[in-house]
Amino acid sequence: MNKFTFQNTTKVHFGEGQISKISKEIPKDARVMMIYGGGSIKTNGLYNTISKVFASRTWYEFSGIEANPQYQTLMEAVEKVKLKRIDYLLAVGGGSVIDGAKFIAAAACYQGDDPWDILSKQQKVESALPMGCVLTLPATGSETNTGSVVTRDKNKLGFLSPKVRPRFAILDPSTTLSLSKRQIGNGVVDAFVHTMEQYLTYPVNAKVQDRFAEGLLMTLMEEGPVALVDQDNLETRGNIMWSATMALNGLIGSGVPQDWTTHMIGHELTGLFNIDHARSLSIVLPAVMQFRRIEKQQKILQYAVRVLNIRSGDSERVIDEAIRMTKQFFIDMGLPTSLADVDLGKEAIETILTSLESHGMTALGERSDIGITNSREILEIALY
Amino acid sequence: MNKFTFQNTTKVHFGEGQISKISKEIPKDARVMMIYGGGSIKTNGLYNTISKVFASRTWYEFSGIEANPQYQTLMEAVEKVKLKRIDYLLAVGGGSVIDGAKFIAAAACYQGDDPWDILSKQQKVESALPMGCVLTLPATGSETNTGSVVTRDKNKLGFLSPKVRPRFAILDPSTTLSLSKRQIGNGVVDAFVHTMEQYLTYPVNAKVQDRFAEGLLMTLMEEGPVALVDQDNLETRGNIMWSATMALNGLIGSGVPQDWTTHMIGHELTGLFNIDHARSLSIVLPAVMQFRRIEKQQKILQYAVRVLNIRSGDSERVIDEAIRMTKQFFIDMGLPTSLADVDLGKEAIETILTSLESHGMTALGERSDIGITNSREILEIALY
Repeated sequence: MNKFTFQNTTKVHFGEGQISKISKEIPKDARVMMIYGGGSIKTNGLYNTISKVFASRTWYEFSGIEANPQYQTLMEAVEKVKLKRIDYLLAVGGGSVIDGAKFIAAAACYQGDDPWDILSKQQKVESALPMGCVLTLPATGSETNTGSVVTRDKNKLGFLSPKVRPRFAILDPSTTLSLSKRQIGNGVVDAFVHTMEQYLTYPVNAKVQDRFAEGLLMTLMEEGPVALVDQDNLETRGNIMWSATMALNGLIGSGVPQDWTTHMIGHELTGLFNIDHARSLSIVLPAVMQFRRIEKQQKILQYAVRVLNIRSGDSERVIDEAIRMTKQFFIDMGLPTSLADVDLGKEAIETILTSLESHGMTALGERSDIGITNSREILEIALY
Repeated sequence: MNKFTFQNTTKVHFGEGQISKISKEIPKDARVMMIYGGGSIKTNGLYNTISKVFASRTWYEFSGIEANPQYQTLMEAVEKVKLKRIDYLLAVGGGSVIDGAKFIAAAACYQGDDPWDILSKQQKVESALPMGCVLTLPATGSETNTGSVVTRDKNKLGFLSPKVRPRFAILDPSTTLSLSKRQIGNGVVDAFVHTMEQYLTYPVNAKVQDRFAEGLLMTLMEEGPVALVDQDNLETRGNIMWSATMALNGLIGSGVPQDWTTHMIGHELTGLFNIDHARSLSIVLPAVMQFRRIEKQQKILQYAVRVLNIRSGDSERVIDEAIRMTKQFFIDMGLPTSLADVDLGKEAIETILTSLESHGMTALGERSDIGITNSREILEIALY
């Protein structure tokens, strides 16, 4: 196991009815801004519930955060924060809304010339507004971590800061019951790929991290398909929700190598062609596994036995089967597994590579040895 | 999965050489008291290392914290804290030293008449000195949790408070290389039993918690025996250390029923007969499994398949085999599995029961239905 520092201070309130805890978590005299997306919280009752909790408080709202939150929209929110002298943010939604709120929290306190520098120049976040969140779409893990990804034009860029980690997160599985099948599938696969990117590298004898990662992968593979057919199953939703949080709260990635190649190439697919985040991952991951089947052999074989229960066959066949079963899981969840599945062809590859290069993504992988040429090979594997 | 609130704020610095981080974690102007046990840190070099880190600081020390920290000793430390106007504690040792430091931290700030009330009357801890710790004996999980157990005469009592959770914990596996085989065995079994007590109850479909618990059990079963024979294996020590922390940091116990029967009966064995904590657990747990084999059937069977890899046999035989293998693991780690193994006979049972009753331990188990009569049956099973 490698050396590491791990801390996650977010207080999680998990379970039905935990929404009432926001009243205790946010100071009574705070000037709160509730931040949300397209308004689904108005149809599923969540908006009303929170309004009631906030009845005697000073609060405002800002809606319209997009999937892949847009810089321009977030800067409008920053304006409102300043105008209304907001001092606490409550994000209500999925990863995009929470990521957006994190950027708003940092940008509102930014002392430099241009808050875009937080993303484009990775300027350190010295302070940020405190924030909490109510998660409605388990997927990104943003609810307890320090990361945020923001899009401006065709640039999808991220930043990390402990200053924007939510103080608290409400995880009520019942808020996820109104999700569409597409949202469920995307969320499960996003969490699955997060786990794989911290797991499928090379072994460093980190037994706890490996077993925890395998536990999350098995849970997502078991519960994901159940959620699609048994749409009122609250226990299944709960297991998915907790898996998604644990998949990217820093724990399983502590002390182990990580390979975020899939995410980095995926971000370009989203930025350039507006492919849903999770769908970019389900296209790229199997190709990364195939391209790195030798370098990742030991961990792919471990994954094959422990997670997929593949018990026989020589190494090459086991790896083939592991990749096939991973793809099949994505297909079962309703996601694409090739560029062709999203109507992209060979001509898209050069565009993606140019964009990767312009974002400095020229040394990806757990050994930083995946350059542009390698990314081209990965994308060629991902074609069909 | 049940409703829960989970938060663990301790910052963990894991790995060789992480000891230097205490310099950043403890404010420069703090008046520090280093708290330790019998002086093994003087022979293994740790005392010197910390002294160097503290060279230009105001610091004092208090040594002599016992295994099962004694109230009288801790109150002497409280005296010294007040005399020297200490405002930060650094515990250096295993669970006993850290538990002791937690009580010192709380007692030094206690506003009531008698700090013993924190334990005997479960008086709420309103404030406590900040503390950090350097763990040298992985076992109790005290390094990142809110619990502390203190002994006064024959009473071994605990308290919980977020105020005494260590601000930071240094986990350097190399500090554990000088442990005796008895300490290694005790530590591994302690962590194993902690995990079992949060796992072996009844199913609530908490898949992540179950799989995480199973991952810890498997890791401890694999790495424990290795640590006994391959005493310089730092990777093995690291896996044990991280397992022990994760076994009792609140995570695997969130959202699931818990059964602390083994610990509660075990505490009496320690208080009355001075049996090492872990050795009291290895005696009691198999008897609890046997006594509760019907009520715990589903989870014992799950444990048998997933952790012990028992693949055939009817339920009764599988449960027998699971209990046998659990005992064998304890024996392999050098621990006793019966009262007879520690030279206690039938006559001890009534003494234990009287003590249990006097401590109010009359409704143990995940359903609070293990009364004194049931504890007698458990102890009778544990006789041989």
